Amino acid sequence: TVDGGKLWADILETARFGATPKGGIRRLTLTEEDRQVRDWFIRTCEALGCVVTFDSMGNQFARRAGTDPSLPPITMGSHLDTQPTGGKFDGIVGVLGGLAVLRALHESGRETRHPVELINWTNEEGSRFAPAMLSSGVFAGVFTEEEALAKTDRDGVRFEDALVGIGYRGAERCGDHPIAAYFELHIEQGPILEAERKTIGVVTGVQGMRWYEVTVIGRDGHAGATPMALRADALVGTAKLIEAVQSIALKHAPGAVGTVGLLENRPNSRNVVPGEVFFSVDLRDPDDAVIVRMEEAFRSAAAQVASESGLEITIKLVWDSPAVRFDPTCIDAVRRAADSFGYPARDIVSGAGHDAVYMAGVTPTTMIFIPCAGGVSHNEEESAEADDVTAGANVLLRAVLDADER
Amino acid sequence: TVDGGKLWADILETARFGATPKGGIRRLTLTEEDRQVRDWFIRTCEALGCVVTFDSMGNQFARRAGTDPSLPPITMGSHLDTQPTGGKFDGIVGVLGGLAVLRALHESGRETRHPVELINWTNEEGSRFAPAMLSSGVFAGVFTEEEALAKTDRDGVRFEDALVGIGYRGAERCGDHPIAAYFELHIEQGPILEAERKTIGVVTGVQGMRWYEVTVIGRDGHAGATPMALRADALVGTAKLIEAVQSIALKHAPGAVGTVGLLENRPNSRNVVPGEVFFSVDLRDPDDAVIVRMEEAFRSAAAQVASESGLEITIKLVWDSPAVRFDPTCIDAVRRAADSFGYPARDIVSGAGHDAVYMAGVTPTTMIFIPCAGGVSHNEEESAEADDVTAGANVLLRAVLDADER
Ligand SMILES: NC(=O)NCCC(=O)O
Ligand SMILES: NC(=O)NCCC(=O)O
Repeated sequence: TVDGGKLWADILETARFGATPKGGIRRLTLTEEDRQVRDWFIRTCEALGCVVTFDSMGNQFARRAGTDPSLPPITMGSHLDTQPTGGKFDGIVGVLGGLAVLRALHESGRETRHPVELINWTNEEGSRFAPAMLSSGVFAGVFTEEEALAKTDRDGVRFEDALVGIGYRGAERCGDHPIAAYFELHIEQGPILEAERKTIGVVTGVQGMRWYEVTVIGRDGHAGATPMALRADALVGTAKLIEAVQSIALKHAPGAVGTVGLLENRPNSRNVVPGEVFFSVDLRDPDDAVIVRMEEAFRSAAAQVASESGLEITIKLVWDSPAVRFDPTCIDAVRRAADSFGYPARDIVSGAGHDAVYMAGVTPTTMIFIPCAGGVSHNEEESAEADDVTAGANVLLRAVLDADER
Repeated sequence: TVDGGKLWADILETARFGATPKGGIRRLTLTEEDRQVRDWFIRTCEALGCVVTFDSMGNQFARRAGTDPSLPPITMGSHLDTQPTGGKFDGIVGVLGGLAVLRALHESGRETRHPVELINWTNEEGSRFAPAMLSSGVFAGVFTEEEALAKTDRDGVRFEDALVGIGYRGAERCGDHPIAAYFELHIEQGPILEAERKTIGVVTGVQGMRWYEVTVIGRDGHAGATPMALRADALVGTAKLIEAVQSIALKHAPGAVGTVGLLENRPNSRNVVPGEVFFSVDLRDPDDAVIVRMEEAFRSAAAQVASESGLEITIKLVWDSPAVRFDPTCIDAVRRAADSFGYPARDIVSGAGHDAVYMAGVTPTTMIFIPCAGGVSHNEEESAEADDVTAGANVLLRAVLDADER
């Protein structure tokens, strides 16, 4: 089993990098705070006898050698970047839980046939650079490295420049890295496990998700002197579309969700009728066909707003991540591991995207969920119990050893 | 009469300071661009024999001496700051039109009993620092200098620091400056004069206006894993309130307007349910009682959204500028001046706020409007005819001389 005390201490120690006054973390990918936690990752993994490398997308790999040099590694991983007002667990539990596994193997002198490797993926959150899971996506061949490097944040900074800027553009070409299996431990980020008092979620797959960028063009006008009838108010049109996303999600399926998370209003001055709004839409459902219908409903709502208001509305699909089912053998290994410890467990489908989604396309993959308080995530108040974190890492350890023995 | 060619050339020359690619101006108050145009104002007025000073709020005064040293100046004025995506005429026509008047007096050697003075007011737009007309408000005793200096922009920069930063915090205490009368030339910023083919608007007053700051507090959540029913989405609540402002304005009076111009969404990440939104509301009507009823309607809409959604909504009234009627003698001077040139004219109430609103509280005041294309203002495409600009400056000249002769 893992050392839960040390694992918890690692969580608290790394929470310093980008700590917010409200007890959360602001550690946007490829920033100085991200560099600090990456440096810490190298130091800490090397102290456990691992060799640490990073690839051309900045993904970090900490490898503990196996006994059979011909075998590719069994891998564990997640991410250390956070949302602008993120918590101390999202992604972090997966990386530091994997570190706890490496520590347990190291301290017990346990040998494995395969190398065991821990991965810290770049830009999982997709908050600074859209879309999410960008670098595992390149690793898996879903995106080209060229398109990923050319992504820009909302200030126009290129991904490549930011990556070079923190010194983490590696020589190994992203994806040139054989892998035998991939396991990712994560907090659920939803309310189910806590509500049902389960310690472990046996993740069978991840729901589908699509991201859109919407631009609404109206006409800047004077807030005092422009009669209501002569306005082309981009923000009023946007308000209708925000409500449309909400009602479309409520209507199309019991589990469907729809969110406008990012919004930029221009020129954003109190006495100017807004002439342009840029916003994002996130639509998800476990059934990809439902997402298609939600998209259709959103497009027709937008067409109606445009025709009623004289606004020009463009909708761009910028990310399409279909629903994924994980590898049955890996799922089984997790289920058996949970049972072996006597942890209460249930099968679950992830509402959040994870690097495991893309890894599932290239190697046997699954995930392990643990509960988080109130199901709250992407929030500075995100919280998880130390015992659950330990339990998750124990299941991860057992599943990795199980895969090694197959 | 004024030299319309030189006046137009001044408009084009100063448009360089903060010129935007789309042909507008971005010259937010107390920025480097504002400093440049202020320096230009000093140079140009001094070349016409004026003495230029500035007060503790950065208001600039260019004085041409009169023959009777005991008399306070007849003043003209407006502002040289712009919106983030402003045009080449809003405010600028008033200052450069006044400059054309000074030039006409200078070049003809015409003597006046009173000094004639041109004022460039600081932060009329209210875009960088709310509220609008801040420094004429301090001049007129509506705001204290202390509260004005302590205002901050959305990045937290203090007004005082920005003013000192560009070198325009003067020694003369704002308001210690006797004035005999105030005339302000401005584009209408609305559609009426153009639609009715009038060259001159004889401005009889300005409608009432109130500004509010609204904060909507919900709970950050994961866009994929938080079920719709468990959300407290501050942006969805805000969308309802944006629509409420729109429908309240449409409902309460034929001329009423309501605008949400500024909106900040937090944490503003594509996959985070927004936990907090800050936005402005601008409500206006020529009848202050209508504004009171609009405010009541908005407050009850907010209370309903809050009770339905579990969001916490706070509304703060940050500016209240009641409707103003200008001085009948000054209005008459403008009407007669327009008639004397044979310019088609009509009485008009201003939908926009102006420094004249506050000056009206301390000295006989009125305004002169000229048409602008399509009534469009606070827009980079704002446009006015050179002939109309000249006509406005001619009326300004005649009205000033009329006041001097009384
Ligand atoms: N796990 C997680 O929060 N990933 C971010 C990608 C997503 O939006 O689901
Ligand atoms: N004239 C003008 O645009 N002033 C800004 C103040 C207002 O919002 O009316």
